[in-house]
Amino acid sequence: MVQDVDILAARVRDGDRRALARAITLVESGRADHRADANALLEKLADPSRQALRIGLSGTPGVGKSTFIEAFGLKLTDAGKRVAVLAVDPSSARTGGSILGDKTRMEQLSRAPGAFIRPSPSQSELGGVARRTRDAIALCEAAGFDIVLIETVGVGQSETIVADMSDLFVLLLAPAGGDELQGVKRGIMEIADLILINKADGALRETAIRTAADYAGALRLMRAREGDAPGFPKAMIVSAVEGSGLDEAWDAMTELAEYRRASGFWDARRARQARGWFADEVRKGLLRRLQADPEAEAAMEALAEEVAVGKRAPGAAAVEVLDVLTRDERA
Amino acid sequence: MVQDVDILAARVRDGDRRALARAITLVESGRADHRADANALLEKLADPSRQALRIGLSGTPGVGKSTFIEAFGLKLTDAGKRVAVLAVDPSSARTGGSILGDKTRMEQLSRAPGAFIRPSPSQSELGGVARRTRDAIALCEAAGFDIVLIETVGVGQSETIVADMSDLFVLLLAPAGGDELQGVKRGIMEIADLILINKADGALRETAIRTAADYAGALRLMRAREGDAPGFPKAMIVSAVEGSGLDEAWDAMTELAEYRRASGFWDARRARQARGWFADEVRKGLLRRLQADPEAEAAMEALAEEVAVGKRAPGAAAVEVLDVLTRDERA
Repeated sequence: MVQDVDILAARVRDGDRRALARAITLVESGRADHRADANALLEKLADPSRQALRIGLSGTPGVGKSTFIEAFGLKLTDAGKRVAVLAVDPSSARTGGSILGDKTRMEQLSRAPGAFIRPSPSQSELGGVARRTRDAIALCEAAGFDIVLIETVGVGQSETIVADMSDLFVLLLAPAGGDELQGVKRGIMEIADLILINKADGALRETAIRTAADYAGALRLMRAREGDAPGFPKAMIVSAVEGSGLDEAWDAMTELAEYRRASGFWDARRARQARGWFADEVRKGLLRRLQADPEAEAAMEALAEEVAVGKRAPGAAAVEVLDVLTRDERA
Repeated sequence: MVQDVDILAARVRDGDRRALARAITLVESGRADHRADANALLEKLADPSRQALRIGLSGTPGVGKSTFIEAFGLKLTDAGKRVAVLAVDPSSARTGGSILGDKTRMEQLSRAPGAFIRPSPSQSELGGVARRTRDAIALCEAAGFDIVLIETVGVGQSETIVADMSDLFVLLLAPAGGDELQGVKRGIMEIADLILINKADGALRETAIRTAADYAGALRLMRAREGDAPGFPKAMIVSAVEGSGLDEAWDAMTELAEYRRASGFWDARRARQARGWFADEVRKGLLRRLQADPEAEAAMEALAEEVAVGKRAPGAAAVEVLDVLTRDERA
């Protein structure tokens, strides 16, 4: 055991940010003994009474995402809220370092007493990043954070993955001509609760207003979704640099969150998400046990050779491996 | 047992098409007892000495795929080859019937003594269709077919799935203006070994020639792949209606297949594919066993309720379920 899980759990529950950082490092580890500790820690910290508002935030590089998060986060911490920022950046695995995770990006916010900023775990597989991120969210909630911002650059499936672990999903866009509206994939539009057109300041302000109107029009054409408050999803303008529109954006998020809590959608969705994570853990755990069982692993290796040359059929060979692992014979 | 697996295996091995059809129905069944029979049958028929040339063929509706398969298939059967046609159509699950599977589409080919045509299994899940199709391929090979054509309309991931179970992948396209070249997704271009521009007859012949030249140019810009014979991937014109270009297309396929056999790429790729199928069977089998174990299933249900309301952490709860299934405690 790396350190005493009970002590770490108590410190996380007290809101100790260094303990939270250590706890996240523990759940991000791939080592089997760390995993056992991480499971024990998460189990100890499971507490339905501590819920943060989980806000998924996507925006491609250049839309001013860091500036927005810093301005928005400071607004919230100034109002006495505790804000955690987690990054999901599948590309960081390839480049070896996360562009998102750099705390220097959000210098002021990182120094705010109520804020916690965590870079993306470097993991080659998006599924691995997803598991680590949802565990990190659970830890931030246990540590008493009010808001967890989960940011992503939107590479591949990362937006869907982030939306699946959020209560609200916000899309941050730059002002653009009407033609560029097509650039946002329909699937992303469908998961957005709020579209914020950033940089609505100076020479770009008029363009931002037009862009927001274009997106508002596009959103009205989409079919109604379960859990939408009247008027949602909506498109608004913000200026992270000037700080304008941030209150309105927060009001919209709060309005939607409250609507979803009152309608029961919030709880139902969280329950559905948690069930999905559980099923995912069971699936992955099965494979890990198979790989950790020397007898089953050896049988699998030997059979794979025979299957590879066509001497054995994959299905029947799989049954043989499974019989070794589960030690009885069920189809 | 539905029928004696030994007898069915012997008949399939004799090339009996009715027995082959029954065998495919058996491997397509979702019933647990059928699955056991199917595994036994596939295991009995596993025979590295019986290999067909597996040709994946993709083409969207309107490119004349049925007409091409009929003309191409008849050319091969006339030359004494035995040709099986299997369809992978994930959309058939939604519509309730396969547009691809209709034998009346390929009336002449379906009556040819050396041909066997099988519609897409109706399955809601693409993964299920994939497993059933690769089992059907194995059965066609065991039945002594020389060529297995696996056709798909190219919905979602179906082209990648078909390419992953083929020795060669052919993309059938219609003549089109230069601008429409963009319409073919780059990912599909990357898996194509041969692009055939169909309808190179009458008024469209010149357009087809230009389209083929455009694609040939685009293919030259792509990075070289392992297993490519000199000059491959290539783009050619055919006319399924006039029967022109079919010999040249077949010569190209044969040339590439022979190159891949000689270079060792063929065997290496087949081994890699078979290993992947085996791993897939193990993964799915683990889940099936979990669902078939009343104790584990009950534990999973009860724990899912607790996870859903946030009382338990997904990871630790998963370990509890797995302990029930594997009856010991490994991480």
